[in-house]
Amino acid sequence: MDQKKFKALLSELKELDLSGMYNDDFFLTWEKTDDQLKAVWTVADLLRTLREGNVSTKVFDSGLGISIFRDNSTRTRFSFASACNLLGLEVQDLDEGKSQIAHGETVRETANMISFMADVIGIRDDMYIGKGNAYMHAVSQAVQEGNAAGVLEQRPTLVNLQCDIDHPTQCMADMAHLIHYFGGIENLKGKKVAMTWAYSPSYGKPLSVPQGVIGLFTRLGMDVVLAHPEGYEVMSEVEEVAKANAQASGGSFTRTNSMAEAFAGADIVYPKSWAPFAAMEERTDLYGKGDFDGIKALEQRLLAQNAQHKDWTCTEELMATTKDGKALYLHCLPADITGVSCKEGEVEASVFDRYRDELYKEASYKPYVIAAMILLSKFKDPAAILARLEKQGRQRIMDLE
Amino acid sequence: MDQKKFKALLSELKELDLSGMYNDDFFLTWEKTDDQLKAVWTVADLLRTLREGNVSTKVFDSGLGISIFRDNSTRTRFSFASACNLLGLEVQDLDEGKSQIAHGETVRETANMISFMADVIGIRDDMYIGKGNAYMHAVSQAVQEGNAAGVLEQRPTLVNLQCDIDHPTQCMADMAHLIHYFGGIENLKGKKVAMTWAYSPSYGKPLSVPQGVIGLFTRLGMDVVLAHPEGYEVMSEVEEVAKANAQASGGSFTRTNSMAEAFAGADIVYPKSWAPFAAMEERTDLYGKGDFDGIKALEQRLLAQNAQHKDWTCTEELMATTKDGKALYLHCLPADITGVSCKEGEVEASVFDRYRDELYKEASYKPYVIAAMILLSKFKDPAAILARLEKQGRQRIMDLE
Amino acid sequence: MDQKKFKALLSELKELDLSGMYNDDFFLTWEKTDDQLKAVWTVADLLRTLREGNVSTKVFDSGLGISIFRDNSTRTRFSFASACNLLGLEVQDLDEGKSQIAHGETVRETANMISFMADVIGIRDDMYIGKGNAYMHAVSQAVQEGNAAGVLEQRPTLVNLQCDIDHPTQCMADMAHLIHYFGGIENLKGKKVAMTWAYSPSYGKPLSVPQGVIGLFTRLGMDVVLAHPEGYEVMSEVEEVAKANAQASGGSFTRTNSMAEAFAGADIVYPKSWAPFAAMEERTDLYGKGDFDGIKALEQRLLAQNAQHKDWTCTEELMATTKDGKALYLHCLPADITGVSCKEGEVEASVFDRYRDELYKEASYKPYVIAAMILLSKFKDPAAILARLEKQGRQRIMDLE
Repeated sequence: MDQKKFKALLSELKELDLSGMYNDDFFLTWEKTDDQLKAVWTVADLLRTLREGNVSTKVFDSGLGISIFRDNSTRTRFSFASACNLLGLEVQDLDEGKSQIAHGETVRETANMISFMADVIGIRDDMYIGKGNAYMHAVSQAVQEGNAAGVLEQRPTLVNLQCDIDHPTQCMADMAHLIHYFGGIENLKGKKVAMTWAYSPSYGKPLSVPQGVIGLFTRLGMDVVLAHPEGYEVMSEVEEVAKANAQASGGSFTRTNSMAEAFAGADIVYPKSWAPFAAMEERTDLYGKGDFDGIKALEQRLLAQNAQHKDWTCTEELMATTKDGKALYLHCLPADITGVSCKEGEVEASVFDRYRDELYKEASYKPYVIAAMILLSKFKDPAAILARLEKQGRQRIMDLE
Repeated sequence: MDQKKFKALLSELKELDLSGMYNDDFFLTWEKTDDQLKAVWTVADLLRTLREGNVSTKVFDSGLGISIFRDNSTRTRFSFASACNLLGLEVQDLDEGKSQIAHGETVRETANMISFMADVIGIRDDMYIGKGNAYMHAVSQAVQEGNAAGVLEQRPTLVNLQCDIDHPTQCMADMAHLIHYFGGIENLKGKKVAMTWAYSPSYGKPLSVPQGVIGLFTRLGMDVVLAHPEGYEVMSEVEEVAKANAQASGGSFTRTNSMAEAFAGADIVYPKSWAPFAAMEERTDLYGKGDFDGIKALEQRLLAQNAQHKDWTCTEELMATTKDGKALYLHCLPADITGVSCKEGEVEASVFDRYRDELYKEASYKPYVIAAMILLSKFKDPAAILARLEKQGRQRIMDLE
Repeated sequence: MDQKKFKALLSELKELDLSGMYNDDFFLTWEKTDDQLKAVWTVADLLRTLREGNVSTKVFDSGLGISIFRDNSTRTRFSFASACNLLGLEVQDLDEGKSQIAHGETVRETANMISFMADVIGIRDDMYIGKGNAYMHAVSQAVQEGNAAGVLEQRPTLVNLQCDIDHPTQCMADMAHLIHYFGGIENLKGKKVAMTWAYSPSYGKPLSVPQGVIGLFTRLGMDVVLAHPEGYEVMSEVEEVAKANAQASGGSFTRTNSMAEAFAGADIVYPKSWAPFAAMEERTDLYGKGDFDGIKALEQRLLAQNAQHKDWTCTEELMATTKDGKALYLHCLPADITGVSCKEGEVEASVFDRYRDELYKEASYKPYVIAAMILLSKFKDPAAILARLEKQGRQRIMDLE
């Protein structure tokens, strides 16, 4: 094991103020302090260092990690499963059906019934504006009450695996990638980030990634530009968060309707499709009314609207206008790649190809970020626990030494 | 860990005659001796004491717990998964499809094919009269033969997770709750229990809960009253069991068609909907013949029949007539709550609300009851194993001591 | 534990040349050397000896085993899950939907996204000629590239759980059964094997079993006869493999259109239905074109063609013509049993009944064969690891010694 790296990271962790993390949930990055976010990245690195050194990081001998996916997922599902397994929890999936919006009593009851031996609950619920994050809070409140009433022996903590507002495990993984790519959090100050809309032939992609990016990247002194065609606005509350963050961190947050303007001189680009916030609100209302014809009509309208902006795509030409023509290209994957996964999409194939390994690395941080969120919420003194794991030195794969 | 409590429970366990439990299945409570039932509650409490004291109860280093759910389930599914995880078994679900009634050769073969490394099989099969329990026996016989023939290295034991006759893990959890609530098994003697039918807008709820309750609660010297509208009879064989139990235990078993009579002075009430036994037999016949139009017609008839008894509901008024107006309200959950989960249902919202925490606690015993059933069937000397777990003192969650 | 047996097997293992197995995949048996195949059987026996002696064989403290089933499966699914559990890996299933034939970029990306903490990937993809094995190679290549690029910390190795060409875990389990049944690999030389087509009322059974059998059994000096009605040819490439194998091993490979000829004097019979290779190629083409009417027509044609060969069935009469009337009957299960699982099928009920225990034992080797494949691919010195497991002597089920 890389002892030197481990010790350095552990020292960093000890410098941070972790108060408030124990027995707490992870909903939105902007509800966390700078130190709390840094703790996630540092613990993620510590866990990775241990695993790479073949040291077991099982802090649980038994216990369940409950996953609730109210939207399709492959990579987040496997990331959550990997994180739980890494720490010694067994995943149990609650398959409620995708479309159902559960109500008060059912949520409270189900949350308790699945949690008798649950240490963590991970939820993805990003389909309906005003619903996903609220549902997560309802679940968390239910199990806290269950724990207080003596129903649950432990209080399962909640990890937001994507809601209608934020996608914190994604954006924290994106940022872990940037920190490593640029050689440290201190090197991110002043970097220009283009978070831009891009054309996709599919419909209704969640807003949680662009919102999560502007809500997080502005924390680190970066110059964040949000670019999209008129009509593709994100939640205004999150823009307010981004503005306030930028002011506090010495960075900036600006908005433009020009992709070219966003890309010009950018250090980092994140071109990705999303649905207009107003349209998603409309869909939620229609869904609430059970107006499925209305939803169909809305879908047609949105696809037509999208099709007017096929020029919003990440081309080689645009990439050439970025800093030294070498901006780092980010994506949460899967991307709509022109000529590969669709006729016309978010990005040209040659751009995507050039950044494939980096994109995969970006994704590789997610299991560790989730595991770090869990570890930080379950232990009062995470640094001591990590030190104990290292000292204990149990092998992840048996070897002969 | 609460050493004193642990030692006291262990002493109780050592007093019991566990003969016949090793390598045996758990089908129906009335196939078990009083000592065997007490052993389940005692081991459940021992496991809970260990877990609450952060002591690992993993008695298996590897091995599978197979679950077969031939009807929907959330809480029993999670209870079984929790129990397996608590003991160190990994759950593998056999998803056969709900409607299929498998035949001889298929059952025998499948049972063996999934069991090469299985230590326990949990089955829920409650839809068809005369089928569920029979299916479980067929599975158990198949793996016993497989074990005897040298096909299976171990004999997976079977836990009935609800059949057409009994729901032993539910009723044993209900009773564990009563034992704790009333401060000991000896305090249950003479308590009046109202197991009553209640109106629900849904159709065809299994009979296994009321049957399981009258078959078990009569074991403990309680005065059990079974109340339902005319036409909602349960299996007469189980009523015979209840009568014999009552006689043996010094309690009583009576039947009435008046909910008020049942509630009057009751210490415990269990108002819950079920389908008439005769109608369920009819449905099974229709299913056997593939007469789906007949099943549809039967459903309509039953819903209409139910609707004539909307007055069978657990009101505040009725609750006021119970012992000191404070009978303990039981339910296996989810309940049909008037004005909450349905327009008119089994129970008034204010009654349900008042008992919510107790209801959740009632459910919290199920994982431990299942784990106890498994442990008692897999070890010749369960007390010695539990003592070894305590002595070994491995932490469930790593801590710094 | 049976120390003597363990030591003898370990000595055998040490005599074998395992070079090339570490960090390699298992696609087709004929891509492996004789020593490599023997290593699989020997390690399978070693693992079984340890487990039977209640010695834990967990070589992984954490880690995932990914399963991808692109066709229905019960026994292979449970075998893979059992093998992973036996070694300490947790199974995560990637449910992609059965019919989808994924394309380049998607395969590459998904393979990496699910593999951040995966040590092994097991795939079943047997529906389309030219696709299944190719898909497995694409997945393997993707994760090797991911590992080389620093995306994946480990290189998940691949186990073919059935492709369009071979079914190596099945045929290796079949052979493990023969080795034990006949008392050693050396006793198989000169044994006559009848791998024959048999009638089934169902349609389109994979070719991978007959192909796997002729590709493997010819390795061991056996006289392998492939029998089928005209028009039911298997892949000619695999027949070439079988011929070459037979020549090298001193056995023989012949083909006949007479079931009687194949059975006459046979030591081993494997009567089993399959679809003609040419028809399966046609189906793949039709599928590629999205011609579902064409597929339906093909199905009708094949069922009619099958029905002309109802006399291809394993009767008592035919069995009487085998060596001393006592050939060992093999099947991968489930079999189509006349009068039991279908009106007319592959085998008479009385024949099947007589061999049931042996058939179940045949199947019981599969979890161990898969575990052996995994262990041999993950450790440089498997003999040393197995010796360490034995020495460590951790109990699989806690006992009191």
